[in-house]
Amino acid sequence: MGKEIPSRSEDYSQWYNELVKKADLAEHSDVRGCMIIKPYGYSIWEKMQQALDKMFKDTGHVNAYFPLFIPKSYLAREASHVEGFAKECAIVTHYRLKNAADGSGVIVDPDAKLEEELIVRPTSETVIWNAYKKWIQSYRDLPILINQWANVVRWEMRTRLFLRTSEFLWQEGHTAHASSAEAVQETLQMLDVYADFAEQHMALPVIKGKKSEGEKFPGAIDTYCIEGLMQDGKALQAGTSHFLGQNFAKAFDVQFAGKEGKLEYVWGTSWGVSTRLMGALIMAHSDDDGLVLPPRLAPIQVVIVPIFKSEDELKAITEKVNQLTTELRKHNITVKFDNRDTQKPGYKFAEWELKGVPVRLAIGPRDLQNGTVEVARRDTKTKQVMKMEEVAVNVLLLLDEMQNNIYQKAFKLREDMTTQVDSYDEFKKVLDGKAGFVMAHWDGTKETEAAIKEETKATIRCIPLDSPEESGKCVYSGKPSVRRVLFARAY
Amino acid sequence: MGKEIPSRSEDYSQWYNELVKKADLAEHSDVRGCMIIKPYGYSIWEKMQQALDKMFKDTGHVNAYFPLFIPKSYLAREASHVEGFAKECAIVTHYRLKNAADGSGVIVDPDAKLEEELIVRPTSETVIWNAYKKWIQSYRDLPILINQWANVVRWEMRTRLFLRTSEFLWQEGHTAHASSAEAVQETLQMLDVYADFAEQHMALPVIKGKKSEGEKFPGAIDTYCIEGLMQDGKALQAGTSHFLGQNFAKAFDVQFAGKEGKLEYVWGTSWGVSTRLMGALIMAHSDDDGLVLPPRLAPIQVVIVPIFKSEDELKAITEKVNQLTTELRKHNITVKFDNRDTQKPGYKFAEWELKGVPVRLAIGPRDLQNGTVEVARRDTKTKQVMKMEEVAVNVLLLLDEMQNNIYQKAFKLREDMTTQVDSYDEFKKVLDGKAGFVMAHWDGTKETEAAIKEETKATIRCIPLDSPEESGKCVYSGKPSVRRVLFARAY
Repeated sequence: MGKEIPSRSEDYSQWYNELVKKADLAEHSDVRGCMIIKPYGYSIWEKMQQALDKMFKDTGHVNAYFPLFIPKSYLAREASHVEGFAKECAIVTHYRLKNAADGSGVIVDPDAKLEEELIVRPTSETVIWNAYKKWIQSYRDLPILINQWANVVRWEMRTRLFLRTSEFLWQEGHTAHASSAEAVQETLQMLDVYADFAEQHMALPVIKGKKSEGEKFPGAIDTYCIEGLMQDGKALQAGTSHFLGQNFAKAFDVQFAGKEGKLEYVWGTSWGVSTRLMGALIMAHSDDDGLVLPPRLAPIQVVIVPIFKSEDELKAITEKVNQLTTELRKHNITVKFDNRDTQKPGYKFAEWELKGVPVRLAIGPRDLQNGTVEVARRDTKTKQVMKMEEVAVNVLLLLDEMQNNIYQKAFKLREDMTTQVDSYDEFKKVLDGKAGFVMAHWDGTKETEAAIKEETKATIRCIPLDSPEESGKCVYSGKPSVRRVLFARAY
Repeated sequence: MGKEIPSRSEDYSQWYNELVKKADLAEHSDVRGCMIIKPYGYSIWEKMQQALDKMFKDTGHVNAYFPLFIPKSYLAREASHVEGFAKECAIVTHYRLKNAADGSGVIVDPDAKLEEELIVRPTSETVIWNAYKKWIQSYRDLPILINQWANVVRWEMRTRLFLRTSEFLWQEGHTAHASSAEAVQETLQMLDVYADFAEQHMALPVIKGKKSEGEKFPGAIDTYCIEGLMQDGKALQAGTSHFLGQNFAKAFDVQFAGKEGKLEYVWGTSWGVSTRLMGALIMAHSDDDGLVLPPRLAPIQVVIVPIFKSEDELKAITEKVNQLTTELRKHNITVKFDNRDTQKPGYKFAEWELKGVPVRLAIGPRDLQNGTVEVARRDTKTKQVMKMEEVAVNVLLLLDEMQNNIYQKAFKLREDMTTQVDSYDEFKKVLDGKAGFVMAHWDGTKETEAAIKEETKATIRCIPLDSPEESGKCVYSGKPSVRRVLFARAY
């Protein structure tokens, strides 16, 4: 188990890349920008999916599946939508290969050209609203509350595992409503669902806010987001929820007859989170020894390592471990017994630390004599000895405590790294120094936003929903402002 | 609720198409051959996924995710594999759109041509074995037991909802082993998993067998399959499990060092089932009134319809229903209370019959007085009156009985429609008459198989694993044969 990951302080970016590979989460494939999500990484994603899927269903949504391919002309129907996605998409132009006449191999058959090119979905608003046109006639057909788990493709030029890949996995909710108010309410409800998921499952505190005009989704009226802070002081957008107004209903001519029979365009929302959350999870909590996983998302919550020299010792330990495992599983705790005889305990300890297993139990011959177990927690790296008969209940409590502790640690980091500034000098100094979130006044113009981005690489992450009204002056232009907004350099 | 589906005897094919649409399972999209799986259809697929996923994990498999795109050159590495898939694939050639110079709209940017074309995966052997090359060095890295849930694309010319679509959802298992025997064992184990799933969850009796050379998977040494019989006497292949030998290991140069250090090519398997199972489920059990769903796959197992004339009556009924619902849910029964006041009971009865809900409870004012409930079962369309306090337990037993009854009915159909024939005249007569499975002797040659297919449209579905040795003469050529094989016309 050569860990060989650089420390965060040494090279945060390289620390992340190596950690993703060494912890067996994902790797690059030979196809530019497309990743392979390895079993251990995928099992964390599955836990995220299960929790989110339940939250979606509990709020009345159902799953469905729409086609991977979007006719080019659909994408073009909503002007800002095509503008936003045209420059980075995978285009299917042919449907057959054939053997080259010169025997040189397999080539694209020029006779099998599609009449209209197909775009591999970068997001599914167009194909879904085209279907909604057929499904919606009257107010009785509304609301439609659909979610889809799918893969999407955006042809990114610079990619990083989980954070930015050409193909990624996500869920996309697409809802249709009879009124603007109801659609806005849905948009905000799903923002809350995402924030609850981030905080309660990922142990990641997030700031809920609205995107500026320049940063909103192509085709939306308003984009809301949750923003988290990573350990290097950079922000990461962890989920978005869009109020689409009637934009897609108009582009696809989706009207409904109201109670009085009057035709009106349908109101829409869309919202999504993706495998990018894996990147956020890793970067928010992990340390120089490897992953730190919040217990609620850990595929293995407890690993048991036997300390033995002989077959007989292992046999005696195994007997105790089997009892303990049964008890832990009764409490719905996921347990792995690492009884490999090809690796030493020290190697195993390091491996499970690297993989972020929250609790490690070690049991040796002396423990058997004393009726004890050594319990090590991954987050604080502290150890304690417990009585065998108390372990199961104590571990259950410990997992809860760790979930909370990991959240609190991230919360404190964010508090420490959020700075109010009132001048542009201070703004730049903070960004280049401690980094993190910067709360500053902004005059509300695209020009100022663009100039700040150009000069400092910081963007407006959001206008926080709980940002109080407060009169001030824009740090850049000195023009009046009514509230502070959240700036940061971001992933 | 205008049902308007033709009867099975009138037009089986049209009955299927209309049923899929009217029961809100799926519909065609505007993209040729790609379907939209609607929420009700998708919820059945989700139940299938959950059951299968558990069976895969219980047999030691883990999930992962590999890229959607396959470089053209990968596909070409295994000769029969490319031959099998080249004629029906979606090919990505460009990665950017741009505005046409003449303002006519959005066009493919000719400057954004890929150096090597990418194929949208028709199946993932190539991309996965290319990854396995990096993951496998020694026998200690084996076995690898990976499954993937994904969408795949095969450019079908004639498509039908669920049965044959250009894009479909499936799972594909890809395993790597240190010995041929272990890989064969895995192949057969997964065939058993599929058969168990079909019989126990889908209530579909299946015949396990081996494909003939002409029908096997491109790139496999042996293909095993499960074959079910539909009500119109046509066969449907419901799942396949392939022993790949060392074919893909050789194509991608995947070798491992054995215990003695000797390098050897890795042995492989792959196995898959798809949304095609939805088609099998529908066609095997449903009737002229709509879907008949086996309880274990029904998204709603019990629907409760109140019979009321006034608000007060509904209120009194609702109170009872709430108690009943709580009790049913304690038994893990999925319940829907259809309390719409916009539709009459008769309409609701027809709608839930169409959607295949196994048990319908009706409760009116007289039932409240008498402490009774009317219980109707979907499979036999029989009704009985039960005491309110006995309903929950009785329904639980009834659901089990129905699951079994639906299976037995399908089993009897298959028994009745399986015919042993000993001459080609009889062979053709059965196919054109009662249809179904035909057990006949075959001389084992490709030529005979092709001639029979050409003349009768019947194919060898499989060489059943339990087919006893029995000397006989090929019905077509008269040449000697050692066992009967299973013929049928098929979907």
